[in-house]
Amino acid sequence: MKRFKAVAIVGAGLIGGSIGLALRERGLADSVIGIGRRQQSLRTARRVGAVTNTTVDLEKGVAEADLVIVCTPVGRIVEDARRAAAAAREGTLITDAGSTKRTIVEALDADLPRGCRFLGSHPIAGSEKTGASHARADLFVGRLTVLTPTKNTRAEDFDALEEFWSSLGSVVIQMPAGEHDRALAITSHVPHLTAAALASIQSECHFRLAGSGLLDATRIASGDPVLWRQIFQLNRENVLSALDQLEGRLTALRTAIANDDVATLEQILSVAKKNRDALGS
Amino acid sequence: MKRFKAVAIVGAGLIGGSIGLALRERGLADSVIGIGRRQQSLRTARRVGAVTNTTVDLEKGVAEADLVIVCTPVGRIVEDARRAAAAAREGTLITDAGSTKRTIVEALDADLPRGCRFLGSHPIAGSEKTGASHARADLFVGRLTVLTPTKNTRAEDFDALEEFWSSLGSVVIQMPAGEHDRALAITSHVPHLTAAALASIQSECHFRLAGSGLLDATRIASGDPVLWRQIFQLNRENVLSALDQLEGRLTALRTAIANDDVATLEQILSVAKKNRDALGS
Repeated sequence: MKRFKAVAIVGAGLIGGSIGLALRERGLADSVIGIGRRQQSLRTARRVGAVTNTTVDLEKGVAEADLVIVCTPVGRIVEDARRAAAAAREGTLITDAGSTKRTIVEALDADLPRGCRFLGSHPIAGSEKTGASHARADLFVGRLTVLTPTKNTRAEDFDALEEFWSSLGSVVIQMPAGEHDRALAITSHVPHLTAAALASIQSECHFRLAGSGLLDATRIASGDPVLWRQIFQLNRENVLSALDQLEGRLTALRTAIANDDVATLEQILSVAKKNRDALGS
Repeated sequence: MKRFKAVAIVGAGLIGGSIGLALRERGLADSVIGIGRRQQSLRTARRVGAVTNTTVDLEKGVAEADLVIVCTPVGRIVEDARRAAAAAREGTLITDAGSTKRTIVEALDADLPRGCRFLGSHPIAGSEKTGASHARADLFVGRLTVLTPTKNTRAEDFDALEEFWSSLGSVVIQMPAGEHDRALAITSHVPHLTAAALASIQSECHFRLAGSGLLDATRIASGDPVLWRQIFQLNRENVLSALDQLEGRLTALRTAIANDDVATLEQILSVAKKNRDALGS
């Protein structure tokens, strides 16, 4: 397992904090530098043991790093990665943890100063909770991380990040950024929209009637509105097209219910059950 | 706490089995008679200790009962309750555990043979799992049970069922059946439709990309297709009207994403988060 002298984590929230915790617990880095915009968040990251050093000065924070991981909200990743590249050592590898990939990869691929190189990562882990206070050293264990190499990606960079995420317990696969974004629109972004739509139509007077089904179905709606707004913006076309699919299925369900079409209704519900059972618990 | 000589449970699945387990664990009934259509299910109920006696003969099973609880799928409750009333002792109280109430209550209220009386119950508990093998004695603890009395309901029957469900650990409230069905369309039935729609649009090739958000959002889609088809049929008008609300919200989200309308997008996501946070975990 490769050991790092210094890993810089830009954005020490749930994901960044969990990376830090995992690195430290597994003894994979001598120092973990937490870089953030608010002293309060950095104090939390330090208190939970996710980072060894903290700074609000991004340029200073990345100056000595072997590896920079940008864990800020997707809308800020491009800018933060560029700033990191401008201040990091020659040829530093930079990655991220963003939930959308195409626009970020297109902006950063083979286009960073000082010979720095970007290779996109998306660890599919996390929760509706935010902040380093919820960080967990085992957040990535058994979870998938998608790397999105391009024709410009060097094999040694791919190998380095594959080893990095594997060393945190993750299962690493690769996928073109565009394919990643199309798939995630269906598996993550539209599910977030439906959870939000469901949560938003609930009336306070009936909150007490909520069963575990509603709690599960809407749990992700507790996520950060600004973070998710940025995800929808950065993956707009795929999200709209996935939303078409979902709305088509809802229309089919509506028509079957309205027409008392038992066969169609049971058929759609059965496909749904089969898929859901296959997804596991 | 009232003790029953014999409680008859028609339909010894997850709900019926959990009632039986709870009654027995709390010593509230001398005998619990499990009535079902398949020997296999009855054997399971007996094996897990949910019932003391079993029979596939509904008439025989209810003959000596102090209380009959019909826990069959909503589409069969009216018929099963009528058959139970025809075979039970004079004046036996009959209730159910169905997720829809209006059509059931309208069919059975003040219209049973032999002076038997029906009062509707809906314990808001359960899961996507089915069968007595998943029954739990604590399934109702801290969960709401809605009773749906009518102008014909006798105070002593209401009191008896309030005490019954309370003795299983449930919090009992009352609500007119129509209001119950309108509310549950929003809190349960449409969430099931969206979970099913979401699950049904997932492609097998991307199952491995599923994160915990998708698993939560679609969990209820593992529920029994036939049971849920019946719920949608019996609560059709309210479900269609709740679906209008949901689709209206999805359309608003779609428009905001398409127009890059950050303010509206964040506003809807914030209302959703506020509601979801208020629902608790």
